[in-house]
Amino acid sequence: MSSIFTKIINGEIPCYKIAETDEFFAFLDINPNSIGHTLCIPKKEVDKIFDLDEATYRGLMAFSRKVALAIEKAIPCKRVGITVIGLEVPHAHVHLIPLHTMEDARFIKKEKLSPEEFQKLADSIKSYL
Amino acid sequence: MSSIFTKIINGEIPCYKIAETDEFFAFLDINPNSIGHTLCIPKKEVDKIFDLDEATYRGLMAFSRKVALAIEKAIPCKRVGITVIGLEVPHAHVHLIPLHTMEDARFIKKEKLSPEEFQKLADSIKSYL
Repeated sequence: MSSIFTKIINGEIPCYKIAETDEFFAFLDINPNSIGHTLCIPKKEVDKIFDLDEATYRGLMAFSRKVALAIEKAIPCKRVGITVIGLEVPHAHVHLIPLHTMEDARFIKKEKLSPEEFQKLADSIKSYL
Repeated sequence: MSSIFTKIINGEIPCYKIAETDEFFAFLDINPNSIGHTLCIPKKEVDKIFDLDEATYRGLMAFSRKVALAIEKAIPCKRVGITVIGLEVPHAHVHLIPLHTMEDARFIKKEKLSPEEFQKLADSIKSYL
Protein backbone atom coordinates (compact mmCIF):
# COMPACT_ATOMS: atom_id res chain seq x y z
CA MET A 1 0.00 0.00 0.00
CA SER A 2 1.27 3.49 -0.80
CA SER A 3 2.38 5.70 2.07
CA ILE A 4 0.30 8.77 2.90
CA PHE A 5 3.13 10.83 1.39
CA THR A 6 3.04 8.91 -1.92
CA LYS A 7 -0.70 9.63 -2.02
CA ILE A 8 0.07 13.32 -1.51
CA ILE A 9 2.66 13.26 -4.34
CA ASN A 10 0.12 11.54 -6.60
CA GLY A 11 -2.60 14.07 -5.76
CA GLU A 12 -4.84 11.45 -4.12
CA ILE A 13 -4.61 13.46 -0.88
CA PRO A 14 -4.57 17.26 -1.19
CA CYS A 15 -1.70 19.34 0.16
CA TYR A 16 -0.31 22.85 0.17
CA LYS A 17 2.56 22.26 -2.24
CA ILE A 18 5.75 24.30 -1.97
CA ALA A 19 8.07 22.74 -4.57
CA GLU A 20 8.46 19.72 -6.82
CA THR A 21 11.25 18.26 -8.97
CA ASP A 22 11.53 14.91 -10.77
CA GLU A 23 12.82 13.34 -7.56
CA PHE A 24 11.59 15.46 -4.62
CA PHE A 25 8.47 17.13 -3.27
CA ALA A 26 7.86 19.75 -0.54
CA PHE A 27 4.57 20.67 1.14
CA LEU A 28 3.33 22.32 4.33
CA ASP A 29 2.96 20.11 7.40
CA ILE A 30 -0.78 20.15 8.14
CA ASN A 31 -0.11 19.82 11.88
CA PRO A 32 2.74 22.32 12.20
CA ASN A 33 5.04 22.89 15.17
CA SER A 34 5.24 26.52 14.04
CA ILE A 35 3.92 28.56 11.13
CA GLY A 36 5.82 27.61 7.98
CA HIS A 37 6.72 24.04 9.09
CA THR A 38 7.37 22.21 5.80
CA LEU A 39 8.10 18.60 4.83
CA CYS A 40 10.60 17.65 2.11
CA ILE A 41 10.45 14.09 0.78
CA PRO A 42 11.94 11.93 -1.95
CA LYS A 43 9.36 10.60 -4.41
CA LYS A 44 11.05 7.24 -3.97
CA GLU A 45 9.26 5.55 -1.06
CA VAL A 46 12.01 4.52 1.37
CA ASP A 47 11.32 4.33 5.12
CA LYS A 48 14.61 5.40 6.76
CA ILE A 49 16.56 8.41 5.51
CA PHE A 50 19.90 6.64 5.91
CA ASP A 51 18.60 3.73 3.80
CA LEU A 52 18.25 6.08 0.82
CA ASP A 53 21.01 5.54 -1.74
CA GLU A 54 23.72 8.17 -1.32
CA ALA A 55 22.76 10.19 -4.43
CA THR A 56 19.10 10.43 -3.39
CA TYR A 57 20.06 11.38 0.19
CA ARG A 58 22.40 14.11 -1.07
CA GLY A 59 19.74 15.34 -3.49
CA LEU A 60 17.11 15.45 -0.75
CA MET A 61 19.34 17.49 1.55
CA ALA A 62 20.24 19.92 -1.25
CA PHE A 63 16.54 20.26 -2.19
CA SER A 64 15.71 20.87 1.50
CA ARG A 65 18.31 23.64 1.66
CA LYS A 66 16.68 25.48 -1.24
CA VAL A 67 13.27 25.22 0.41
CA ALA A 68 14.69 26.28 3.80
CA LEU A 69 16.26 29.43 2.32
CA ALA A 70 12.83 30.38 0.89
CA ILE A 71 11.15 29.70 4.26
CA GLU A 72 13.72 31.95 6.01
CA LYS A 73 12.80 34.76 3.61
CA ALA A 74 9.05 34.25 3.97
CA ILE A 75 8.70 33.64 7.71
CA PRO A 76 10.08 35.88 10.46
CA CYS A 77 11.97 33.48 12.78
CA LYS A 78 15.32 33.06 14.52
CA ARG A 79 16.33 30.35 12.02
CA VAL A 80 14.97 27.29 10.23
CA GLY A 81 15.72 24.00 11.99
CA ILE A 82 15.93 20.49 10.55
CA THR A 83 14.44 17.35 12.10
CA VAL A 84 14.24 13.81 10.74
CA ILE A 85 12.51 11.29 12.98
CA GLY A 86 10.25 9.04 10.93
CA LEU A 87 8.76 6.80 13.64
CA GLU A 88 5.21 7.48 12.37
CA VAL A 89 5.16 7.59 8.54
CA PRO A 90 7.42 4.98 6.84
CA HIS A 91 8.51 7.35 4.05
CA ALA A 92 11.64 9.39 4.71
CA HIS A 93 10.85 13.06 5.36
CA VAL A 94 12.82 16.14 6.40
CA HIS A 95 10.99 18.57 8.69
CA LEU A 96 11.99 22.19 8.12
CA ILE A 97 10.76 24.16 11.12
CA PRO A 98 10.92 27.94 11.63
CA LEU A 99 12.30 28.24 15.17
CA HIS A 100 11.43 30.97 17.66
CA THR A 101 12.13 28.98 20.84
CA MET A 102 13.34 25.47 21.66
CA GLU A 103 9.70 24.44 22.07
CA ASP A 104 9.19 24.69 18.30
CA ALA A 105 11.60 21.77 17.83
CA ARG A 106 9.89 19.44 20.32
CA PHE A 107 6.76 18.29 18.43
CA ILE A 108 4.55 19.00 21.44
CA LYS A 109 3.04 22.44 20.79
CA LYS A 110 1.02 22.65 17.53
CA GLU A 111 -0.40 25.57 15.53
CA LYS A 112 -3.90 25.72 14.04
CA LEU A 113 -4.36 27.45 10.68
CA SER A 114 -7.35 27.88 8.39
CA PRO A 115 -7.18 26.59 4.79
CA GLU A 116 -6.88 30.22 3.64
CA GLU A 117 -3.96 30.82 6.00
CA PHE A 118 -2.19 27.64 4.80
CA GLN A 119 -2.65 28.65 1.16
CA LYS A 120 -1.37 32.18 1.76
CA LEU A 121 1.65 30.76 3.58
CA ALA A 122 2.42 28.30 0.76
CA ASP A 123 2.14 31.10 -1.83
CA SER A 124 4.46 33.30 0.23
CA ILE A 125 7.17 30.63 0.56
CA LYS A 126 6.88 29.71 -3.13
CA SER A 127 7.37 33.35 -4.10
CA TYR A 128 10.94 33.17 -2.70
CA LEU A 129 11.93 29.99 -4.58
CA MET B 1 35.99 34.45 20.95
CA SER B 2 36.04 30.88 19.67
CA SER B 3 32.87 28.82 20.07
CA ILE B 4 32.93 25.89 22.49
CA PHE B 5 32.96 23.63 19.41
CA THR B 6 36.03 25.36 17.93
CA LYS B 7 37.75 24.79 21.28
CA ILE B 8 36.82 21.09 21.04
CA ILE B 9 38.21 20.89 17.48
CA ASN B 10 41.44 22.56 18.66
CA GLY B 11 41.78 20.19 21.61
CA GLU B 12 41.40 22.99 24.19
CA ILE B 13 38.33 21.17 25.53
CA PRO B 14 38.45 17.35 25.59
CA CYS B 15 35.88 15.26 23.73
CA TYR B 16 35.11 11.71 22.71
CA LYS B 17 36.05 12.04 19.04
CA ILE B 18 34.31 9.91 16.42
CA ALA B 19 35.66 11.21 13.11
CA GLU B 20 37.63 14.07 11.58
CA THR B 21 38.35 15.28 8.05
CA ASP B 22 39.98 18.50 6.79
CA GLU B 23 36.59 20.21 6.95
CA PHE B 24 34.44 18.34 9.48
CA PHE B 25 34.53 16.87 12.98
CA ALA B 26 32.26 14.44 14.88
CA PHE B 27 32.16 13.74 18.61
CA LEU B 28 29.82 12.35 21.25
CA ASP B 29 27.30 14.76 22.79
CA ILE B 30 28.30 14.91 26.47
CA ASN B 31 24.65 15.42 27.49
CA PRO B 32 23.02 12.84 25.22
CA ASN B 33 19.31 12.37 24.51
CA SER B 34 20.10 8.68 24.04
CA ILE B 35 23.21 6.52 24.06
CA GLY B 36 25.23 7.20 20.91
CA HIS B 37 23.98 10.80 20.40
CA THR B 38 26.70 12.40 18.25
CA LEU B 39 27.37 15.91 16.94
CA CYS B 40 28.75 16.60 13.46
CA ILE B 41 30.15 20.07 12.80
CA PRO B 42 32.01 22.01 10.13
CA LYS B 43 35.40 23.28 11.28
CA LYS B 44 34.39 26.60 9.75
CA GLU B 45 32.64 28.53 12.53
CA VAL B 46 29.28 29.60 11.07
CA ASP B 47 26.23 30.03 13.32
CA LYS B 48 23.27 28.94 11.17
CA ILE B 49 23.42 25.78 9.04
CA PHE B 50 21.66 27.45 6.13
CA ASP B 51 24.22 30.27 6.18
CA LEU B 52 26.97 27.77 5.33
CA ASP B 53 28.05 28.04 1.70
CA GLU B 54 26.38 25.35 -0.39
CA ALA B 55 29.51 23.17 -0.77
CA THR B 56 30.19 23.13 2.98
CA TYR B 57 26.53 22.37 3.75
CA ARG B 58 26.52 19.50 1.27
CA GLY B 59 29.80 18.21 2.66
CA LEU B 60 28.52 18.38 6.23
CA MET B 61 25.38 16.39 5.37
CA ALA B 62 27.41 13.75 3.48
CA PHE B 63 29.87 13.50 6.41
CA SER B 64 26.91 13.16 8.82
CA ARG B 65 25.51 10.30 6.71
CA LYS B 66 28.76 8.34 7.02
CA VAL B 67 28.81 8.84 10.78
CA ALA B 68 25.09 7.93 11.07
CA LEU B 69 25.62 4.64 9.20
CA ALA B 70 28.37 3.74 11.69
CA ILE B 71 26.13 4.68 14.64
CA GLU B 72 23.35 2.46 13.25
CA LYS B 73 25.78 -0.46 13.19
CA ALA B 74 27.15 0.21 16.68
CA ILE B 75 23.98 1.08 18.59
CA PRO B 76 20.81 -1.05 18.70
CA CYS B 77 17.98 1.41 17.89
CA LYS B 78 14.97 1.80 15.61
CA ARG B 79 16.85 4.33 13.45
CA VAL B 80 19.17 7.32 13.71
CA GLY B 81 17.39 10.67 13.60
CA ILE B 82 18.73 14.08 12.57
CA THR B 83 18.13 17.37 14.39
CA VAL B 84 19.56 20.81 13.75
CA ILE B 85 18.41 23.53 16.14
CA GLY B 86 21.33 25.73 17.14
CA LEU B 87 19.66 28.17 19.51
CA GLU B 88 22.33 27.58 22.19
CA VAL B 89 25.76 27.23 20.54
CA PRO B 90 26.40 29.65 17.62
CA HIS B 91 28.35 27.08 15.57
CA ALA B 92 26.27 24.95 13.16
CA HIS B 93 25.90 21.35 14.39
CA VAL B 94 23.99 18.29 13.27
CA HIS B 95 22.65 16.08 16.06
CA LEU B 96 22.59 12.38 15.13
CA ILE B 97 20.37 10.64 17.67
CA PRO B 98 19.70 6.90 17.97
CA LEU B 99 15.90 6.77 18.32
CA HIS B 100 13.95 4.23 20.35
CA THR B 101 10.87 6.38 21.00
CA MET B 102 9.76 9.87 20.05
CA GLU B 103 11.02 11.07 23.45
CA ASP B 104 14.60 10.60 22.27
CA ALA B 105 14.06 13.40 19.72
CA ARG B 106 12.68 15.96 22.20
CA PHE B 107 15.81 17.10 24.10
CA ILE B 108 14.08 16.64 27.45
CA LYS B 109 15.20 13.24 28.73
CA LYS B 110 18.98 12.90 29.12
CA GLU B 111 21.29 9.93 29.71
CA LYS B 112 24.18 9.82 32.19
CA LEU B 113 27.31 7.90 31.22
CA SER B 114 30.67 7.45 32.92
CA PRO B 115 33.89 8.51 31.13
CA GLU B 116 34.64 4.81 30.56
CA GLU B 117 31.21 4.26 29.01
CA PHE B 118 31.63 7.29 26.72
CA GLN B 119 35.07 6.07 25.59
CA LYS B 120 33.81 2.53 24.91
CA LEU B 121 30.90 3.95 22.92
CA ALA B 122 33.17 6.19 20.83
CA ASP B 123 35.51 3.27 20.13
CA SER B 124 32.57 1.11 19.08
CA ILE B 125 31.16 3.69 16.63
CA LYS B 126 34.64 4.39 15.23
CA SER B 127 35.15 0.68 14.58
CA TYR B 128 32.33 0.83 11.98
CA LEU B 129 33.69 3.83 10.08
